Amino acid sequence: MDEVPAVRENFADQLIAAIKRKNSCVVVGLDPHFKLIPDAIKQKFSTFQRQNLEYAARIILEFNLQVIDLIAPLAGVVKPQIAFYELYGWWGIWAYAETIKYARQKGLLVIGDVKRGDVPSTAEAYADAHIGEVHIDNIVETPFAADAVTVNPYLGADSLLPFLQTAKKQNKGIFVLVKTSNPGSGEFQDLMCGGKKLHETIAEKTHAWGKDLMGKQGYSAVGAVVGATFSHEISTLRKIMPAAYFLVPGYGAQGATAKDIAHCFNPDGLGAIINASRSILYAYTFSHWREKYGVKGWKDATREAVLKMNEEIRKIVIN
Amino acid sequence: MDEVPAVRENFADQLIAAIKRKNSCVVVGLDPHFKLIPDAIKQKFSTFQRQNLEYAARIILEFNLQVIDLIAPLAGVVKPQIAFYELYGWWGIWAYAETIKYARQKGLLVIGDVKRGDVPSTAEAYADAHIGEVHIDNIVETPFAADAVTVNPYLGADSLLPFLQTAKKQNKGIFVLVKTSNPGSGEFQDLMCGGKKLHETIAEKTHAWGKDLMGKQGYSAVGAVVGATFSHEISTLRKIMPAAYFLVPGYGAQGATAKDIAHCFNPDGLGAIINASRSILYAYTFSHWREKYGVKGWKDATREAVLKMNEEIRKIVIN
Repeated sequence: MDEVPAVRENFADQLIAAIKRKNSCVVVGLDPHFKLIPDAIKQKFSTFQRQNLEYAARIILEFNLQVIDLIAPLAGVVKPQIAFYELYGWWGIWAYAETIKYARQKGLLVIGDVKRGDVPSTAEAYADAHIGEVHIDNIVETPFAADAVTVNPYLGADSLLPFLQTAKKQNKGIFVLVKTSNPGSGEFQDLMCGGKKLHETIAEKTHAWGKDLMGKQGYSAVGAVVGATFSHEISTLRKIMPAAYFLVPGYGAQGATAKDIAHCFNPDGLGAIINASRSILYAYTFSHWREKYGVKGWKDATREAVLKMNEEIRKIVIN
Repeated sequence: MDEVPAVRENFADQLIAAIKRKNSCVVVGLDPHFKLIPDAIKQKFSTFQRQNLEYAARIILEFNLQVIDLIAPLAGVVKPQIAFYELYGWWGIWAYAETIKYARQKGLLVIGDVKRGDVPSTAEAYADAHIGEVHIDNIVETPFAADAVTVNPYLGADSLLPFLQTAKKQNKGIFVLVKTSNPGSGEFQDLMCGGKKLHETIAEKTHAWGKDLMGKQGYSAVGAVVGATFSHEISTLRKIMPAAYFLVPGYGAQGATAKDIAHCFNPDGLGAIINASRSILYAYTFSHWREKYGVKGWKDATREAVLKMNEEIRKIVIN
């Protein structure tokens, strides 16, 4: 059971409030990479007899809790990527669920980066699991209780409808994969279909789906994943989906800079949240921070990495 | 740790051997629907103080184990749909992992219907989780250890490469979503892009990806999901991907008949496996079987539903 107040606003309004509260458009990607977790954390679990999935999951969770405490004053949104939890089996999924619970207790919004998509009856199960509720006899449970999820549109509108309906009912958000940040994303997403690129068609649909979930501040609870690594596509997508919040991966370790993401924002200074994972969580492994803080100063490195990113993005947001 | 012999064949060869051993092209979809699980199973857990996620997951697992025992002599492949396990949180994922383990102990091949797809570094985590292995310090674990998984191609070839590499290294299989069985699948999948439908382009790529993972019997470890509900598309796809095994959903409860799926098979009588979930697992809820066996006879209904489906498909396979 989660800690969120009973009366909730539209997800877009919650998101804008979180951004303004922290004066930050940064999303901290909670992507556990076991090898990169500081030894200081691992040593707490040195009494474990065997380095099994439970051992890894408990270390990951402890790391996440410390990171959340660190970044909660500096950023309003976290995004755990579920793949890096599935990697540790059901123990990993336990850590994923506990991470979401703790982040929400700390007042953070949580985007579950699950990229799910399936036929309608199956999509309904995913939506209920991640942003909805499940009924077991007369009991209601909220298995993961994220504030929003990412979804894959390849199966068509009927496959996304359960997510849209659940988001509307529960005041949650969804982010549709429109143009992803990987180098090969153009292979299918940029195919010309009827005079426009496939991802532009999906952007048009995303805009249309979002009309039924508008918040009070002109933004929709239906957002879009738009990779920062393709800055030339962003302006077009901004025009097609003026009311969609963009979830922008690729900043930092993936190579995109603040300049690249300038066009993600609307003239009101809103409309985009920028994700960074490795460059924040494992800042202490980057030579610049390592020299300054050493391994023992990983928390200082992480804190300063968020502050620096906040500052870089504030500079380019026109408001 | 799984029970599969150390030396494994190409997944397509394992699949063909399983089909021939059981004389069955049926895939039993292990999709738990809590409400439909017979009361006789639920009563075993009546001492539970609260109907929570653990309670549901334990009932689901018990049901699956009994179903696996029932169908193992009659079919060679099972396909748990992970969404229906995620619905019960990490307890549900525990039931998913235990289900796979038990099915493989019983000599069944397991296709994890996960439809994952993400940017390359993330896709690698998914591939390792579901068909590969994870290294924790000096220990190697196989978190889910399915024999094959379904994958979503929307992010492009680079996003599927980790699955292809892992499948090759571990002799596992993947099934690429080409044309899905939902009514709205045509919205994007049938868009005309450069003179052909998007799903035909993806079929061509699937054929190409599969060339590097060919088994000894002319089939590839890279298969395709092709919905039985679109029988007019199937013949074209069969020609584009002659060496791909088709995983065909939509039989039974989704409305496709044996005739619809006839064109999924090659002239050698191979090339397709046909999934049914609700019409087998919950056969006792369909009026025909309910009248014959009643609620208490759910096992007889399930057994006979598999036998009947085996027979229906054998009739239309030309060999």
